[in-house]
Amino acid sequence: MQWQVYLSGEIHSDWREKISDGVQREGLAITLSSAVTDHQTSDDCGDRLLGAENEPFWKDHKAAKINAIRIKTLIQQADLVVVRFGDKYRQWNAAFDAGYSLALGKPIITLHDDGLTHALKEINAAAMASARTPEQVVAILKYSLTGKC
Amino acid sequence: MQWQVYLSGEIHSDWREKISDGVQREGLAITLSSAVTDHQTSDDCGDRLLGAENEPFWKDHKAAKINAIRIKTLIQQADLVVVRFGDKYRQWNAAFDAGYSLALGKPIITLHDDGLTHALKEINAAAMASARTPEQVVAILKYSLTGKC
Amino acid sequence: MQWQVYLSGEIHSDWREKISDGVQREGLAITLSSAVTDHQTSDDCGDRLLGAENEPFWKDHKAAKINAIRIKTLIQQADLVVVRFGDKYRQWNAAFDAGYSLALGKPIITLHDDGLTHALKEINAAAMASARTPEQVVAILKYSLTGKC
Amino acid sequence: MQWQVYLSGEIHSDWREKISDGVQREGLAITLSSAVTDHQTSDDCGDRLLGAENEPFWKDHKAAKINAIRIKTLIQQADLVVVRFGDKYRQWNAAFDAGYSLALGKPIITLHDDGLTHALKEINAAAMASARTPEQVVAILKYSLTGKC
Amino acid sequence: MQWQVYLSGEIHSDWREKISDGVQREGLAITLSSAVTDHQTSDDCGDRLLGAENEPFWKDHKAAKINAIRIKTLIQQADLVVVRFGDKYRQWNAAFDAGYSLALGKPIITLHDDGLTHALKEINAAAMASARTPEQVVAILKYSLTGKC
Amino acid sequence: MQWQVYLSGEIHSDWREKISDGVQREGLAITLSSAVTDHQTSDDCGDRLLGAENEPFWKDHKAAKINAIRIKTLIQQADLVVVRFGDKYRQWNAAFDAGYSLALGKPIITLHDDGLTHALKEINAAAMASARTPEQVVAILKYSLTGKC
Amino acid sequence: MQWQVYLSGEIHSDWREKISDGVQREGLAITLSSAVTDHQTSDDCGDRLLGAENEPFWKDHKAAKINAIRIKTLIQQADLVVVRFGDKYRQWNAAFDAGYSLALGKPIITLHDDGLTHALKEINAAAMASARTPEQVVAILKYSLTGKC
Amino acid sequence: MQWQVYLSGEIHSDWREKISDGVQREGLAITLSSAVTDHQTSDDCGDRLLGAENEPFWKDHKAAKINAIRIKTLIQQADLVVVRFGDKYRQWNAAFDAGYSLALGKPIITLHDDGLTHALKEINAAAMASARTPEQVVAILKYSLTGKC
Repeated sequence: MQWQVYLSGEIHSDWREKISDGVQREGLAITLSSAVTDHQTSDDCGDRLLGAENEPFWKDHKAAKINAIRIKTLIQQADLVVVRFGDKYRQWNAAFDAGYSLALGKPIITLHDDGLTHALKEINAAAMASARTPEQVVAILKYSLTGKC
Repeated sequence: MQWQVYLSGEIHSDWREKISDGVQREGLAITLSSAVTDHQTSDDCGDRLLGAENEPFWKDHKAAKINAIRIKTLIQQADLVVVRFGDKYRQWNAAFDAGYSLALGKPIITLHDDGLTHALKEINAAAMASARTPEQVVAILKYSLTGKC
Repeated sequence: MQWQVYLSGEIHSDWREKISDGVQREGLAITLSSAVTDHQTSDDCGDRLLGAENEPFWKDHKAAKINAIRIKTLIQQADLVVVRFGDKYRQWNAAFDAGYSLALGKPIITLHDDGLTHALKEINAAAMASARTPEQVVAILKYSLTGKC
Repeated sequence: MQWQVYLSGEIHSDWREKISDGVQREGLAITLSSAVTDHQTSDDCGDRLLGAENEPFWKDHKAAKINAIRIKTLIQQADLVVVRFGDKYRQWNAAFDAGYSLALGKPIITLHDDGLTHALKEINAAAMASARTPEQVVAILKYSLTGKC
Repeated sequence: MQWQVYLSGEIHSDWREKISDGVQREGLAITLSSAVTDHQTSDDCGDRLLGAENEPFWKDHKAAKINAIRIKTLIQQADLVVVRFGDKYRQWNAAFDAGYSLALGKPIITLHDDGLTHALKEINAAAMASARTPEQVVAILKYSLTGKC
Repeated sequence: MQWQVYLSGEIHSDWREKISDGVQREGLAITLSSAVTDHQTSDDCGDRLLGAENEPFWKDHKAAKINAIRIKTLIQQADLVVVRFGDKYRQWNAAFDAGYSLALGKPIITLHDDGLTHALKEINAAAMASARTPEQVVAILKYSLTGKC
Repeated sequence: MQWQVYLSGEIHSDWREKISDGVQREGLAITLSSAVTDHQTSDDCGDRLLGAENEPFWKDHKAAKINAIRIKTLIQQADLVVVRFGDKYRQWNAAFDAGYSLALGKPIITLHDDGLTHALKEINAAAMASARTPEQVVAILKYSLTGKC
Repeated sequence: MQWQVYLSGEIHSDWREKISDGVQREGLAITLSSAVTDHQTSDDCGDRLLGAENEPFWKDHKAAKINAIRIKTLIQQADLVVVRFGDKYRQWNAAFDAGYSLALGKPIITLHDDGLTHALKEINAAAMASARTPEQVVAILKYSLTGKC
């Protein structure tokens, strides 16, 4: 039983590392995957790969389409999707990934602070668990794979 | 050719009315649908329908699950989904609806101001059109049904 | 917006009539459907329609397959499935219908007394609402269609 | 030909061990999987992993959603689902798993005593075989993989 | 509740008429459909519609592809498929329709004489009922729609 | 039996009118649909509806995405797709529509001159019929709906 | 590129061995699979595995359901299905497998003598190739995997 | 993360080799696949494998159906599809593959010269990226797998 887990959302804190460390420490048979998390590279990939655009809208459009190749493929391959919402920025792409995952039948775990529960009620209603810390996410993953908690 | 169009997102401006007026004025064979847009009713429906909860998390959870009956059913019945993002609030549910619609293969039209294009680049990349005004949405609907523009 | 609602489960109380009365009283655009609820007819339909069986197992088998034509077709056509669990009998077919409905993506409302919540926790976790009275089911249906509560 | 077989249902007898022993003894290329079968852990996992709940309904709800991550993922990965019904408890979750498996197109084998055939007629009508002993289940698995019986 | 019922198989007896008469006599809300049942027309449609072929294989091929437009569309639209096997001819197309219907999740009723039960065991195992007379088929249809038998 | 038939391809000859006339003359229960066939409008719709673009690539991109709302929706609603290839222009969009229709399981009829058979062999291999004249298409439609030819 | 190829149909000639020999001789990366081809075992498996039945219909039914576990699972796992029709017996199960495979989107190769082309025209119209000898089937498999012919 | 990438389209230039060289040079975990690219073999495979045809239409038909076994299977297995359009020949099969891939939810990268952007606007609107050189395709593949650009 080897599971693919996709990590979506916030890129300005170290929650991915904490989950990765926990998965390794617990020896879980899990492969983690993510979008490109380097902000500048992700924003500029369209221009760098296919030439610069004059209009900001199309620069973003070209980059976002290219990024979607990786994101959509990895979500489709995932057994489980973890979506992290921080308190800064709008992070609509995280909620977008959550809706996409839901329609594909992927179980979702959200990760966010208590202050965001009202704003995230629709997504939490569709999620299988709502965690407050990366450690809780790791514990849920461990339980799902090994039955231990 | 009668189309179902689901209107998702912002509930604090009159964009739904403007689209509805435009659809009527143009005589388009379109049925519009939405989530419950009365904020208080939508938030309190769980308590009112099934009894009050003590914990805010579960009050929200119960309400959001009940609201999802209507939302998910109407999106599944829709031929087209319009998603409106305003400049206030986080509106993660709008982005969530967009992701859900995308995975179901529904064409998406976004409606937002110029200032949000960078934040919405992933959703716009998946959308078939990105409008700035309700009038533009009506024009696109008219064109899609009648071929006139 | 005309919805098909399938009513699954207990056949020894009048919960179907109460929901039907409520739907009519509220003037909701809902068509209700059910399995054949006459117990004897449902049990004997195989023998009556295709000849008597000697073995009880095959008598049941033949009847259950024929009943499945109606049940599965109506669930597939439904927008929403209400599943009623009473305190008598095992009612495995109700839970079976619930699992089938879930995998087809149909929203589920359960209807049962407080004493059954622990036994029904898996189904309630997948359901969009858990009601205690037929009146609550009607109220949720009304809210889902009209937004009023 | 390596098959995944999911074992659903009763957790108070040793039927899983008997099937596991039989699969090993026959050298069948089968991987068996199950929900978490430790009753207390399964019931309390929500509280342990994400903090205690005051309301029994929500304690159960939280636990059941977390357990569903494992259950639904393993059923989706399964080639075949065995569902065991004992004579104690209501075991609605076993029937629920059976309905879910059916809609996903997974072949089902039921395992139960003769006394339950009438109560299980709907599920048996949809199942590919109805066994009375774990040894029969192993024999069917052996036959399905090797053609020997 | 208006059902589409597709009638597949034997074209040299009057079973279709008997079912049609029965459906009308019982006033059932059923629309019946079939392949083109005029043998010569069905065989020659390719040549008549698109020009004559020299090779018998390609004459058949062209006709069969054109006939498939009607057959596959009607089966996809059907709620239920009745498949009739007579004692003459090979009727592989009837068995082919049955397999196609099964994979689409359509309930199947077979109609054949007792002498064919062994030869049809795989199809009967997948069917929801196996009738011996058109009158039995009508009775099952009536029961499925009205619950009366 | 009312069928939706989508007409894809060449816009510089009157084949659509001929099919439409034939359908009307024969009194067939068919609704025909098409992309926007006014060349200039189709090319310029993006600029007209959402503002002019500087880059030809993005002007085309914006228009093509908007046109796809209509095209993809109508193909999804269609029971049958007719694809016309003329001897001028590349008409990649017609072949693109054919591939899209095939994967959705829609039967395809191609319409082209004899000179194109080699170039269209992959599409014809997947099509249910390959016609040379609009009259033949009408005859196939008539046969598929009425069984007459 | 390792392909799964399911071999359906006639069990009274050595066509399976010839294809297996050819695949091995050519060193093709193909895994072949089949139903249980021992006639007696296949017919009696229900009685042997789950106890004897009195009624021939139910003996066949029980056996056919158990055999379907293997058959349907292997067809679902297959990349390609070869269906052999001989000149004896009705072989409705072969045509049934072909229809099931078609609806699942599996490419089909038929294998039969010239004398059966008219009787098999519907299946051949849906198949990707119609071979007369096992050697031709092997040659098509080789070409599909290696591009050599 | 090992990806399958299908290369569709033009067979008269060395773009496949350039992509293959680039993938190898960058050490990307990608398996490339293609249709049979030897023109004569691809055209004649039907005649060679199953005997010569008199009519050019059926020679092409037979060959195209056999080629479709490989093409459709490989596209279904692909995570990503690259479609190359050259300035010679009609290449309707490339556009056909693109439409087929789109409906299966496969991300598409187009590869063509600037002069073809208007003719390819529908396909580019559905594609995730439009490259001008094989080197750009390799760079996008590298970015999608490694996040480096």
